[in-house]
Amino acid sequence: MYIMPPMSAANLFYAQSGGVTPVINATAYGVIKEAAQHAQIAKVYAGINGILGALREEIVDVNAEDPKTIEYLRHTPGGAFGSCRYKLEDPKQDSTKYQRLIEVFKAHQIGYFLYNGGGDSQDTTAKINQYSIDAGYPIQCIGIPKTIDNDLPVTDNSPGFATVAKYIAVTTREVSLDVASMCASSTKVFILEVMGRHAGWIAAAAGLAAQNTGEAPHITLFPEIPYEEKRFLDAVQKAVTCYGYCVVVASEGTRDSMGQFLSAANGQDAFGHTQLGGVAPYLAQRIKETFGYKYHWAVADYLQRAARHISPTVDVQQAEATGRMAVQLAAEGKSGLMPIICRDSNDPYQWHIESTDINKVANREKLMPRDWISDDGFSINSKARAYLAPLIQGEDYPPYKDGLPVYAKLKLQLLKRKLPAFDV
Amino acid sequence: MYIMPPMSAANLFYAQSGGVTPVINATAYGVIKEAAQHAQIAKVYAGINGILGALREEIVDVNAEDPKTIEYLRHTPGGAFGSCRYKLEDPKQDSTKYQRLIEVFKAHQIGYFLYNGGGDSQDTTAKINQYSIDAGYPIQCIGIPKTIDNDLPVTDNSPGFATVAKYIAVTTREVSLDVASMCASSTKVFILEVMGRHAGWIAAAAGLAAQNTGEAPHITLFPEIPYEEKRFLDAVQKAVTCYGYCVVVASEGTRDSMGQFLSAANGQDAFGHTQLGGVAPYLAQRIKETFGYKYHWAVADYLQRAARHISPTVDVQQAEATGRMAVQLAAEGKSGLMPIICRDSNDPYQWHIESTDINKVANREKLMPRDWISDDGFSINSKARAYLAPLIQGEDYPPYKDGLPVYAKLKLQLLKRKLPAFDV
Repeated sequence: MYIMPPMSAANLFYAQSGGVTPVINATAYGVIKEAAQHAQIAKVYAGINGILGALREEIVDVNAEDPKTIEYLRHTPGGAFGSCRYKLEDPKQDSTKYQRLIEVFKAHQIGYFLYNGGGDSQDTTAKINQYSIDAGYPIQCIGIPKTIDNDLPVTDNSPGFATVAKYIAVTTREVSLDVASMCASSTKVFILEVMGRHAGWIAAAAGLAAQNTGEAPHITLFPEIPYEEKRFLDAVQKAVTCYGYCVVVASEGTRDSMGQFLSAANGQDAFGHTQLGGVAPYLAQRIKETFGYKYHWAVADYLQRAARHISPTVDVQQAEATGRMAVQLAAEGKSGLMPIICRDSNDPYQWHIESTDINKVANREKLMPRDWISDDGFSINSKARAYLAPLIQGEDYPPYKDGLPVYAKLKLQLLKRKLPAFDV
Repeated sequence: MYIMPPMSAANLFYAQSGGVTPVINATAYGVIKEAAQHAQIAKVYAGINGILGALREEIVDVNAEDPKTIEYLRHTPGGAFGSCRYKLEDPKQDSTKYQRLIEVFKAHQIGYFLYNGGGDSQDTTAKINQYSIDAGYPIQCIGIPKTIDNDLPVTDNSPGFATVAKYIAVTTREVSLDVASMCASSTKVFILEVMGRHAGWIAAAAGLAAQNTGEAPHITLFPEIPYEEKRFLDAVQKAVTCYGYCVVVASEGTRDSMGQFLSAANGQDAFGHTQLGGVAPYLAQRIKETFGYKYHWAVADYLQRAARHISPTVDVQQAEATGRMAVQLAAEGKSGLMPIICRDSNDPYQWHIESTDINKVANREKLMPRDWISDDGFSINSKARAYLAPLIQGEDYPPYKDGLPVYAKLKLQLLKRKLPAFDV
């Protein structure tokens, strides 16, 4: 933790990074509203497409937006300022971009850098924080948590996850009623592929749909549990025999005992992660070949990640609260920190916001604990349920017009450039 | 239209057939509530798994259910009594099953047969209606419309479609915000595969998400418009160039100029329809190979068909109203009819229920008119918009408990059998 001398009325730079979430704009809303409460903060600027916006000097003056549009940010999915998947190199090897960042920050009187992202993105926050200290230019760097994968350590959960959890739980409950009604003469197996590259939190959330024995999901495949085909197929057959149908929720990150993804598609993202998708059709095919059951499968992909229409109240509140806390930390002269959510109790669910060292978060992943998963590896147990259930409480519906949700549309007028162009 | 002498206090048999919808149980609710208003109707029975329930004498006395559960039917997706994909043969070739049906109806004093299904299912209604006339046993047969595909003729729209339309429009709007925020350094193309085997109504509904030029969906693929790869790829490239990203909504029934489905999976259903799925990954692959764009794709499948959590008010009201009208027709001594929705005006959207001859509906499909699709074949025009927009009005949210929708769970206690078993 590095305490910097507060600068009078410096501008605050906020940007969104990594895969966006249904509530990352609620965090932006919290940042903007909170910043207005602090005399040390002059204007709120936002980077277009995350750190790229700072490097390219593509910066928006948020205060130029219509106040009503800012209110609408609170219920708008996606990243309103654009996001990026972009990893800064080690400044010891090449500090060109860090120098550029300092130049841009100086040119626009930016004294606060708030970066809203997951574990990869907080690597950027940590690096800029350290470089800023080493370079002797007082930029206060605060990370803000965000990831639907819920794999950030230290924090109780990550804003964005709870919406996806609710969407997947609701969807699993809904589709299971559909499959149950068709299974006598048609579809007997339904497979839902969900996100979660290395951590099974999203897949786990499907388990909330089941309240009684025999209710879907009958089988959940977690990245943390190696996939064994025979055990899986036996479990499918058992569910069809016992209940007439089988609902499988499979993480996109399901891997075999050799650590190979069941379905690795082509291409990698900028962080070197394999781009996934296609576990559901693979499993469906194996089930069809083995038992001949009629199947249906769905791949939820971005549908889950953008599903703001079904956000739980808790998620929106926490997204906003972490944004507000980030501003408070900055206004207090802190740097190198990230707000975290702390759980006080499960029932009633109570929480508060604290902060942690950004280095405890950057580049780390929190997986599902093995003892939150049933012995057979196919479902969540009461520990996971106690953790997950409070997060999906409440329905924070967006406003609708003509049958469709009304989402914020920003003007995103760029600040006049003060520096030469910078290729990135 | 066949007028039968009303029988005093006969029982009414209701069953659900074909692919279920998010609001087919609202129709069941309408049937049950309306039947209680008519002295000619004694009890409401429901067949387990559609016509199979009648053949197997697996019949539930609906009045034995908890009244609160019946109320909850109105907002519960899936088919609460089970559905089937089952086609009755021509009685001239084999009348065994028809004789069985008459025996079962006689044994349980059933004088009214209400069959809730799409075009294939209404073939069953029409056949039983005709056989019942020819056999001189006065069963009053009324079809009730239902299909998410919206391909039933005569009726303005089919209950179930509007929920899927709203879900797809909302989802398209949501995911487009996600893709737009990622496109600078990551995902540039998103493909959403939607249902609609032969008719593009569901794909068309995605078009409601766009209100201004450049908004998603940028390309819609309809089954009615032959897919030409070069034109499609050119359009993808154009969207990426103009807007930075491209959102494609593709019907599962997208076909090439030879009429071949882009992706025909293995297996056929009981009606001989090919089981589809996989257009989205196919298109994604072609885009990746041609341009190298990073892509994401989703297959909505049952997620759309069970999405009761986002039903428009109109859909629930019409589903209930068609159920009520079916009972009224039966109580008036009618047979061989199906209630239809008639549109009186678009703005404000006004409608009423009439009825049509079941033979005008059975085995027929209503496709998207060519002149409701843009000249280039890639989007809807103002005619389609005027038709679709009223249907997704209003949000009929289900009640939630602990963050999840509370859906009806019926006891489904079977009536005591009066006849020998019948293999089917």
